Amino acid sequence: MNRLIEKANILIEALPYIRAFAGKTLVIKYGGHAQLDEALKAGFAEDVVLMKYIGLNPVIVHGGGPQISDMMKRLGKEPRFVNGVRVTDKETMEIVEMVLGGVINKEIVELITRHGGRAVGVSGKDGRLITAKPVKAAGGKRVDLGQVGDVDSIDPQILVDLTSNRYIPVIAPVGVGRDGRTYNINADLVAGAVARAVRAEKLVMLTDVAGILNAKGALIPTLSRKDIQRLIKSGTITSGMLPKVHACLTAVEGGVAKAHIIDGRVPHALLLEIFTKEGIGTEIIA
Amino acid sequence: MNRLIEKANILIEALPYIRAFAGKTLVIKYGGHAQLDEALKAGFAEDVVLMKYIGLNPVIVHGGGPQISDMMKRLGKEPRFVNGVRVTDKETMEIVEMVLGGVINKEIVELITRHGGRAVGVSGKDGRLITAKPVKAAGGKRVDLGQVGDVDSIDPQILVDLTSNRYIPVIAPVGVGRDGRTYNINADLVAGAVARAVRAEKLVMLTDVAGILNAKGALIPTLSRKDIQRLIKSGTITSGMLPKVHACLTAVEGGVAKAHIIDGRVPHALLLEIFTKEGIGTEIIA
Amino acid sequence: MNRLIEKANILIEALPYIRAFAGKTLVIKYGGHAQLDEALKAGFAEDVVLMKYIGLNPVIVHGGGPQISDMMKRLGKEPRFVNGVRVTDKETMEIVEMVLGGVINKEIVELITRHGGRAVGVSGKDGRLITAKPVKAAGGKRVDLGQVGDVDSIDPQILVDLTSNRYIPVIAPVGVGRDGRTYNINADLVAGAVARAVRAEKLVMLTDVAGILNAKGALIPTLSRKDIQRLIKSGTITSGMLPKVHACLTAVEGGVAKAHIIDGRVPHALLLEIFTKEGIGTEIIA
Amino acid sequence: MNRLIEKANILIEALPYIRAFAGKTLVIKYGGHAQLDEALKAGFAEDVVLMKYIGLNPVIVHGGGPQISDMMKRLGKEPRFVNGVRVTDKETMEIVEMVLGGVINKEIVELITRHGGRAVGVSGKDGRLITAKPVKAAGGKRVDLGQVGDVDSIDPQILVDLTSNRYIPVIAPVGVGRDGRTYNINADLVAGAVARAVRAEKLVMLTDVAGILNAKGALIPTLSRKDIQRLIKSGTITSGMLPKVHACLTAVEGGVAKAHIIDGRVPHALLLEIFTKEGIGTEIIA
Amino acid sequence: MNRLIEKANILIEALPYIRAFAGKTLVIKYGGHAQLDEALKAGFAEDVVLMKYIGLNPVIVHGGGPQISDMMKRLGKEPRFVNGVRVTDKETMEIVEMVLGGVINKEIVELITRHGGRAVGVSGKDGRLITAKPVKAAGGKRVDLGQVGDVDSIDPQILVDLTSNRYIPVIAPVGVGRDGRTYNINADLVAGAVARAVRAEKLVMLTDVAGILNAKGALIPTLSRKDIQRLIKSGTITSGMLPKVHACLTAVEGGVAKAHIIDGRVPHALLLEIFTKEGIGTEIIA
Amino acid sequence: MNRLIEKANILIEALPYIRAFAGKTLVIKYGGHAQLDEALKAGFAEDVVLMKYIGLNPVIVHGGGPQISDMMKRLGKEPRFVNGVRVTDKETMEIVEMVLGGVINKEIVELITRHGGRAVGVSGKDGRLITAKPVKAAGGKRVDLGQVGDVDSIDPQILVDLTSNRYIPVIAPVGVGRDGRTYNINADLVAGAVARAVRAEKLVMLTDVAGILNAKGALIPTLSRKDIQRLIKSGTITSGMLPKVHACLTAVEGGVAKAHIIDGRVPHALLLEIFTKEGIGTEIIA
Repeated sequence: MNRLIEKANILIEALPYIRAFAGKTLVIKYGGHAQLDEALKAGFAEDVVLMKYIGLNPVIVHGGGPQISDMMKRLGKEPRFVNGVRVTDKETMEIVEMVLGGVINKEIVELITRHGGRAVGVSGKDGRLITAKPVKAAGGKRVDLGQVGDVDSIDPQILVDLTSNRYIPVIAPVGVGRDGRTYNINADLVAGAVARAVRAEKLVMLTDVAGILNAKGALIPTLSRKDIQRLIKSGTITSGMLPKVHACLTAVEGGVAKAHIIDGRVPHALLLEIFTKEGIGTEIIA
Repeated sequence: MNRLIEKANILIEALPYIRAFAGKTLVIKYGGHAQLDEALKAGFAEDVVLMKYIGLNPVIVHGGGPQISDMMKRLGKEPRFVNGVRVTDKETMEIVEMVLGGVINKEIVELITRHGGRAVGVSGKDGRLITAKPVKAAGGKRVDLGQVGDVDSIDPQILVDLTSNRYIPVIAPVGVGRDGRTYNINADLVAGAVARAVRAEKLVMLTDVAGILNAKGALIPTLSRKDIQRLIKSGTITSGMLPKVHACLTAVEGGVAKAHIIDGRVPHALLLEIFTKEGIGTEIIA
Repeated sequence: MNRLIEKANILIEALPYIRAFAGKTLVIKYGGHAQLDEALKAGFAEDVVLMKYIGLNPVIVHGGGPQISDMMKRLGKEPRFVNGVRVTDKETMEIVEMVLGGVINKEIVELITRHGGRAVGVSGKDGRLITAKPVKAAGGKRVDLGQVGDVDSIDPQILVDLTSNRYIPVIAPVGVGRDGRTYNINADLVAGAVARAVRAEKLVMLTDVAGILNAKGALIPTLSRKDIQRLIKSGTITSGMLPKVHACLTAVEGGVAKAHIIDGRVPHALLLEIFTKEGIGTEIIA
Repeated sequence: MNRLIEKANILIEALPYIRAFAGKTLVIKYGGHAQLDEALKAGFAEDVVLMKYIGLNPVIVHGGGPQISDMMKRLGKEPRFVNGVRVTDKETMEIVEMVLGGVINKEIVELITRHGGRAVGVSGKDGRLITAKPVKAAGGKRVDLGQVGDVDSIDPQILVDLTSNRYIPVIAPVGVGRDGRTYNINADLVAGAVARAVRAEKLVMLTDVAGILNAKGALIPTLSRKDIQRLIKSGTITSGMLPKVHACLTAVEGGVAKAHIIDGRVPHALLLEIFTKEGIGTEIIA
Repeated sequence: MNRLIEKANILIEALPYIRAFAGKTLVIKYGGHAQLDEALKAGFAEDVVLMKYIGLNPVIVHGGGPQISDMMKRLGKEPRFVNGVRVTDKETMEIVEMVLGGVINKEIVELITRHGGRAVGVSGKDGRLITAKPVKAAGGKRVDLGQVGDVDSIDPQILVDLTSNRYIPVIAPVGVGRDGRTYNINADLVAGAVARAVRAEKLVMLTDVAGILNAKGALIPTLSRKDIQRLIKSGTITSGMLPKVHACLTAVEGGVAKAHIIDGRVPHALLLEIFTKEGIGTEIIA
Repeated sequence: MNRLIEKANILIEALPYIRAFAGKTLVIKYGGHAQLDEALKAGFAEDVVLMKYIGLNPVIVHGGGPQISDMMKRLGKEPRFVNGVRVTDKETMEIVEMVLGGVINKEIVELITRHGGRAVGVSGKDGRLITAKPVKAAGGKRVDLGQVGDVDSIDPQILVDLTSNRYIPVIAPVGVGRDGRTYNINADLVAGAVARAVRAEKLVMLTDVAGILNAKGALIPTLSRKDIQRLIKSGTITSGMLPKVHACLTAVEGGVAKAHIIDGRVPHALLLEIFTKEGIGTEIIA
């Protein structure tokens, strides 16, 4: 019986957070191990479905880099990167769209469905969600990246319609440019832009690290724009973390209350971030 | 961190119950120690507010016997009972209504408000909620009980209006007869009749015992009408437990899915009953 | 037949007033003889129900001073007043709440119900209607009045929800302070604050006098703030009339179109005030 | 003051009727002196507007025989009748439609507007309200009446749309046949058919007689179908009263609660019928 | 088959116009040959019904000069004009209203109904649509024109209610002055004022000329206020065309996007104007 | 000008069809040349967008056989068929889903978007649209086809939500079995089942033949179940046409008014079928 009462106490501890987030939208960048490990996948789906049931509006944005590279190799194409950005020729773009929109997106939809939620997967083409613009440089260097794009604008209407009809939207980071071409966009950047467009309460980035670490390897709990600029300059924030922090800044400077870079390898990392005082990972503030 | 993950797991364990009860109404008879002990009161309010936030519709019915007797004594009136039923002359009725509707009802409203809910207290007079009829006998014996009544009919419209406007209704068990007189009604019976009228998913009776015990003092987990009749005959169910089991039978035979007699002395007894597989106390089935 | 035609003409005379008040809210302070005399009570209920049926939104605020003093005496407590304000210790507060919320409030609800209306009684605790603040002085003199309060703020949502669901709200003048304590508030002040908060079209105070009289005892039909200040200075307006005129000024200066102090001893005083050109009593203007 | 209280009492006497008719539809056949005398016209408009404001839905059907004959003469055409039915050749039909729809209908709309109501005039052509069928006989005798029609069917949608948008519909009794021709229909019959189609609570026929009189000239308060058949056989009900009683029977046998033939020469006859116990005229029951 | 494909291509050519006008209101002044010739009438009705079905909101305003003069003569009255304006004494006003509201308005309603639309005819009296003011001069000369009026104000509520209930409103240009008198108003002016009041997307005037012609008789495709003033000065725009251009200017200067004076003698002139790039007639711009 | 009038006449000819289909749902199986030829693709998108704008609700179901085989070959996998059914092992299933959901579905969405519509692509996983069941035989012969499925049930809620929010749904024929496995379903069968589930007015199959031909190669305009059974027996209907006729029968026997097998190689075949009397192809009736 005491164990049961202890359980009840834990539910009650969540009450202030449930109250605070009632009706609010949370944009979640889903990726890394959390998307690959079976137990973490189940935990993620449970977290998302629970949030939806208790009155929050989760919106998922996913990536899929490893699966894309894998499919490219099976098709006899060698993936090529410039400063961490995938060079995306026409054929690669087709593979990107196929893997993201056809496989991963629907797998996540099915994962959420299996755990009792109602999900609908969309790419940036559905309901004209994402208008893209070409990216002309990588890591400060001008280079022809092919159909690599950035977010030009977001039309959040389809997200509003889906969430008000009680669905959980799952977004594949592909957009269409004003030139009619399809673009491969970094999922972190899409998550930041979507969070901003829907005026989300929170943006949460699931990663494979504990958060942003200082030079001594210790977790930094909170960072401002100024802190971030300093850490980039000093080389503490590099490569894959750059689009994440930029997306977070885009979001918080566009009206999102808080953005978090958290450790997706921790079971139920989402719930921990949202329903406990301590939070986990690094919080980016405006 | 492990403790946090354990916490998240407990939230996740509640998910199937949250899904199952989404949008459902629960009628809760609130009374006994749970209404008197400060820690239990806080726990009750937290449970009710949590339920409301995560999508259930709790409706509270409360009693107030000890407080009524206490006020009677302060007014120089000796409480009189026949087979456990309070003889209610005109003056007693006034005290009953005053204590139930004026003090206890508003105290519960305020308790829930303080824990973050929005409650509205009503008596059976508000919105013509309860029409009463006089009770002419106690324990099978015809006797003049004065203004003691039973539920004649329930008009649940005010409960529907309050819950659809996101309030938690709190009901004082007082009704008006077709004769225009005010009647004092057993709160258990009101809870049963209300649960039936609103087609509640569950009726939960908070008591000061572990549930219904068999002759050897062991808790009986489930009882049918036939079982109950046998236990009454054998004298195992007596006195104060009688209106509770009758109310439960009224409810389940009128379409309420389940009725429970549980131990209100256990912290968060409501949550335990609703959000754990084990449940607590005795379940009455149709 | 001529008598019937005469009747029809009287109904028709009411048409301009019905048109003018369609959909408007009227806050009515109910008290005095109108609350004690059986014929006046019936007349009051008929007036309120008629208003509701023909498209107005009456909101009732009631007092209950004599009944409180009566109950205190029955409980062996001597009422004590400082400059006309009841000193309210903890025990007195309990009696106040019990009598106002438990007896008088429900009696008025039942009275309206009996005449065909649908009423719901609330105190300032229900739906967090009234937040109170302690009163530290009476008649300009600092004195410990115990739990005597004034209106700090009104959250009119519960009134909006009840009236839009076609109920007539009946308010007992009890509020909760930010300190969590219950406060006894003058019903006139509550009526003024509620009228202001719901942007009522009219505030009508039922009293036991013809209105405000000048030094020679003649009724003054209209008074402005300046007039009132002069009459207070000259001692023409005193004691029990003070909170009434203050409440009226609060209301009209907060956007209520008109406030009236009328003679509740006149049968159907409310209808006369609202549906005849002449009006009755004294009108307070901004 | 006593006169004022008397007035209030008369308003209160109307309350049970206001409650009983709240939200109900009343179809009123307007014609005769009530349509010609200035004072009676004003009284009629006041009655209709009052009804609308206090929650009833009046629907007006008007005739216009005298004005049609007058216009025909001005145009040099002699009106011709067979058993009281106007022979309606193509030219006459045009005059009928012109006078009913162009003059009288809009005059009534303007009359109601001037008294504070919002009226919209329609003929049977608007929103396809009335589908007509030719009448082949008058007074049992087969005769070519030209474009004289009866109601074939009513599509009440336009009436529903207008009343739900708070308008008072005013209907000119002209319909279109399945042959595409316009038909002149007796206004009494249109009123009966409309009352039936909208499931009116009451059908009220304003006439120039006290009601239906027996052979000795005394008013008959209530008549059933059987009574009516007997009175027609005995020649007590004749000519112009025949379509009225048939329309009333059509209505009550089609679900209208009550139909009344009343004296439109009495000022405010409508209000008297609806808001007094005595009623006036003759009531037709199913 | 090729002919069918050609047909489909023509439907597809209309798509950009259908998209551009979706949900927009078009006010159409209907008159001249288009109102008299059977084939043109059918074409007009088809055009209006098609527009309504594919998502536009047509509102019709009609005149009826020739029919009025015709009826006057049949009634033995000689029509009299001052500078093209009909002198309207009381008797003439009655004929005007009778012919416009009783005959022509209902004929158009029936015409639209026969082609599958749902129309409701109103005059300026219905729902208080048009408030009129007397006109004191014609062609710059002060003269007693009797009940000739201009638009004082438009209350578009009845049009909003009818169109939102899926009806096509048909308006007879008759209004009521603040003096209670009925006024005969030029239909062109009513069309302009209505277009402005409902913030129409377009005002289209069906006339019996190709549009506005220059001194050499060639069609002028587009005209601004300045152009119009010049053409009036030079005597190129005269008489019957004056109210049309004034109405167009009133409309476009009041927020209507475009106004057109087109040739109603061309079959389906409305569709051509709206669904083809070329348009027809003269366009008036702000 | 005559050419313009001719155009208008063609628009008007479509009116009866627009009226008949207003608000109705049409399920369109999109495939074959219509999906591959650039001009036909544009024509298809224009047809669909036009339908949506003028009040119909098109729902698209697409296939993608050739593209799947193509991708398989690029991945070094040889497509294998048994009686025309693709043997679908786990790896093939992944390719099927990738090509259908990731490439073709989004290409169609983008195609419609480019022509001015608002489309959202879904697979049977989104919103749990399609529950699948394994197919155990091909052409009457039991054989292991792997993850080839048939429709078990359709939950049309997501289609209802999308169409009521003004989107055009585009469906990839992939479903999830109760065993959690993904299934490749024949697009014709999905179209038939969806048409039945949404109670479509019409099911239209775009094919690469003129319709169903008789033994002499002439088009058969109408076929009943009996006719079809005879033609299958006689070998006139074979192979790829079999799922199409079965899907059509499923639909019409489940309440769809009509089903059509038409020639998608004809430009604007959809419009021709829906907006012309002649129709094209073969109609299947219940």
